Amino acid sequence: MDVYEALYTTRAMRRVKPDPIPEEVQAKILDAAIRAPSGGNSQGWRFMLVDDKKVIEDLAPLYRECLDRLFSTVYNDQLEAANKAPEENGEFLKMYRSAKHMGDHFEGYPLLFLAFSRGDRSGGSIFPAVWNAMLAARAEGVGSAITSLLMFEIEKTYEILGVPQDKGWTFACLVPMGYPTGRWGVAPRRPVHEVSYKNQWGAPLGFDIPEPLWSAD
Amino acid sequence: MDVYEALYTTRAMRRVKPDPIPEEVQAKILDAAIRAPSGGNSQGWRFMLVDDKKVIEDLAPLYRECLDRLFSTVYNDQLEAANKAPEENGEFLKMYRSAKHMGDHFEGYPLLFLAFSRGDRSGGSIFPAVWNAMLAARAEGVGSAITSLLMFEIEKTYEILGVPQDKGWTFACLVPMGYPTGRWGVAPRRPVHEVSYKNQWGAPLGFDIPEPLWSAD
Repeated sequence: MDVYEALYTTRAMRRVKPDPIPEEVQAKILDAAIRAPSGGNSQGWRFMLVDDKKVIEDLAPLYRECLDRLFSTVYNDQLEAANKAPEENGEFLKMYRSAKHMGDHFEGYPLLFLAFSRGDRSGGSIFPAVWNAMLAARAEGVGSAITSLLMFEIEKTYEILGVPQDKGWTFACLVPMGYPTGRWGVAPRRPVHEVSYKNQWGAPLGFDIPEPLWSAD
Repeated sequence: MDVYEALYTTRAMRRVKPDPIPEEVQAKILDAAIRAPSGGNSQGWRFMLVDDKKVIEDLAPLYRECLDRLFSTVYNDQLEAANKAPEENGEFLKMYRSAKHMGDHFEGYPLLFLAFSRGDRSGGSIFPAVWNAMLAARAEGVGSAITSLLMFEIEKTYEILGVPQDKGWTFACLVPMGYPTGRWGVAPRRPVHEVSYKNQWGAPLGFDIPEPLWSAD
């Protein structure tokens, strides 16, 4: 697969089939992850694959608890407003329903990918590796989506996964994976010229970008 | 370019030629960056390209100050130990010399890519975008390397770049770019089985991974 096809079509895929991910595909995902850069090439990372149904079933209620907590606290007002005026809050409701779908079908993911980091305050030494894993998954036809929600129940998460609490490892994110039920496509984004500057904050780029630069056609 | 070639060979490239990066390549880099995922598709990001020699020359001494400070504080003991026993500290000295090279030749980079984020505590919503930019750069033959060093002189950095200090934007990283003088290759990494677990922390994957899975040959 061409690199641009991977970069443009690796969108969040939360609706997946229960089909298992073969070990040779798991190997490609992990081997791509470790190719990422890290500060001083420190490689302060650990990756965990979970395909044991029992472990996935133990994590599922935790994920749902975290989701409920998020939408009854941080996003509570926004959710109430969105429920009152759904047509004006389409993007928010779409995000809510997608996160909710992950919770409702958590037991259906055939593979979970988890990333942990140490000595990486900015996230700059772990998220390129996570994204590499997701791009390699895409190249193999496997969908994925990043979530850091388990953070709200991190002690119980660590207990289920056997993560030591005294070695300095920090949970970076959970990436459920599976073969998607839907089709790959380019996700909607604000165009480059609205989020990019040249030489000074607020200054225009000075060149146009056809939108999008790459397409499947 | 095949996606795996990009994932495997996008290594830190700090030694580059002064040749300018054409605008159509700059466009590809930015358009790839915005394809990355972000929490709730919030896209809380701003990207800045700097190719104005004056701005690069203003940032250069700041970068060198930050570098000096890093190696006279955080890494001071390690650097002293490494200078006493260079043969035992090859990896550290390599990293030091590479960072030093960036400082000594900062004015020679034809293009700087900077990323800023808002509402992203983990880095999970900005570093996939940064890494996308670097992968697209690689696909176009442009080398790059992440550094967050300017963090130590962030107020002066913001002043030079005109970044508002009251809008909640956080500097994520600086990525100097340029056509490399050296050759692309797969960077050394600890193998997957040393940094990956299956179902429980510390548990082996249960499958072997040929090292590396991909090669240029």
